[in-house]
Amino acid sequence: MARNLLVRCSYCGTAYHGFQIQKNGDTVAARLMEAIFQVTGEASPTIGCSRTDAGVHAREYFFNFHTGAKISSERLPAALNAHLPYDIAVTACREVPEDFHARYRAVGKEYCYFIHNSPVRDPFCESLKYHYRYPLDEKLLDHAAKWFVGTHDFSAFCSAGSSVKDTVRTITEARVSREGELVLFTVRGTGFLYNMVRIMAGTLLGVAEGKLSAQEIPDIINSCDRSRAGITAPAHGLYLNRVFYTWEEFETLPGR
Amino acid sequence: MARNLLVRCSYCGTAYHGFQIQKNGDTVAARLMEAIFQVTGEASPTIGCSRTDAGVHAREYFFNFHTGAKISSERLPAALNAHLPYDIAVTACREVPEDFHARYRAVGKEYCYFIHNSPVRDPFCESLKYHYRYPLDEKLLDHAAKWFVGTHDFSAFCSAGSSVKDTVRTITEARVSREGELVLFTVRGTGFLYNMVRIMAGTLLGVAEGKLSAQEIPDIINSCDRSRAGITAPAHGLYLNRVFYTWEEFETLPGR
Repeated sequence: MARNLLVRCSYCGTAYHGFQIQKNGDTVAARLMEAIFQVTGEASPTIGCSRTDAGVHAREYFFNFHTGAKISSERLPAALNAHLPYDIAVTACREVPEDFHARYRAVGKEYCYFIHNSPVRDPFCESLKYHYRYPLDEKLLDHAAKWFVGTHDFSAFCSAGSSVKDTVRTITEARVSREGELVLFTVRGTGFLYNMVRIMAGTLLGVAEGKLSAQEIPDIINSCDRSRAGITAPAHGLYLNRVFYTWEEFETLPGR
Repeated sequence: MARNLLVRCSYCGTAYHGFQIQKNGDTVAARLMEAIFQVTGEASPTIGCSRTDAGVHAREYFFNFHTGAKISSERLPAALNAHLPYDIAVTACREVPEDFHARYRAVGKEYCYFIHNSPVRDPFCESLKYHYRYPLDEKLLDHAAKWFVGTHDFSAFCSAGSSVKDTVRTITEARVSREGELVLFTVRGTGFLYNMVRIMAGTLLGVAEGKLSAQEIPDIINSCDRSRAGITAPAHGLYLNRVFYTWEEFETLPGR
């Protein structure tokens, strides 16, 4: 009898062409499938909670896969970690109902965009934070970010190449804070379009640079015109930070 | 008239065979000399405050060099940074007296050894912290570290291959603290022998594992026997953290 296992992991995206398996280029899913094969002897497809772009990181990521193998969900994380590269770490596993789907059942996600804001770069985090050398006023950016909250057609914040038809999304929380030289944009919502958080971050940087005013953001959203929003901020500042499910046992995962 | 410039930098040591120039392998000093040549047109030797091993990092490092070039010490950091790789960053520069020598004039140094203490590895810091998966009691280790303080012959904490004859050093401060999953060993002293901090860190891990008791540390020091101390902990957990000079203008450097 096949079980359906939900697995939590985190990964540094620097070396990967995103999560999702593709023909050319190493991916997180390919490494996970390889480790699952080593542990179970089965070639089980991994169903990820989200596609992430090349270079994007995940502090918390969920995927599920079906297996006939006997290994307990408690032992699986250490078993998979023994077969995974250092930059992918499995942190928890739970058996879930047969029809549980890591993407369809996700009811919300939180992304963080990390900006190292200093005149001088930090030699320790080239691929882990976006270095921005000019002063940033986090209060101004926090004020600007509040305009993202609500249910809107976010097509102005969606890169070309997306095949999604319904571009309405609900953002439940958006804030910008500072800890020393780290400026952090956190955004939580029920779903996100292709590159949406990176374009939001780029738009906030446009506000910081005076190219846009915070008050223009509602107009930019209403315009549904990608060219009016800011740049797509670089991938390496972006982290999928948390994923939410309405599943009662979910809160028993360690670290929740 | 040649000036003597003292430069502060920080670097991630992962890609380098230590600070000091060598025939085989890329070094921090080689990259700095290259950048200095680009800026000044001169092949000036860099006089470093310390040799660091391959893979060891520096959050603060000083070197000096002599130059006949006209560039101001205020402009030099940005000029050098433009010619340095991302993992080396110059943060300040001051003109110093002709005879100032970054190594001989250093009166103290502080090293930090970073341990990521968690059953599961952190995919974001493979080369930046030493991953130790078993529980560590930071209070026990802090107690053990106190035995290092004082003026001792530290030859039990010196790797073979060192040509130093005087192996007496003074440790002014040694402590172990925890912030969440990060366990930090900080040690300050007037000077350090080859691999001394890494052997101290390895000895503390030996105490954590019950291979040694904290109370044995004075005996190990007195034995002058390298084989009685712990392992040489891996290079990638070690950071040169601060360097001290008795030079009045030193305290005017940004960030002091």
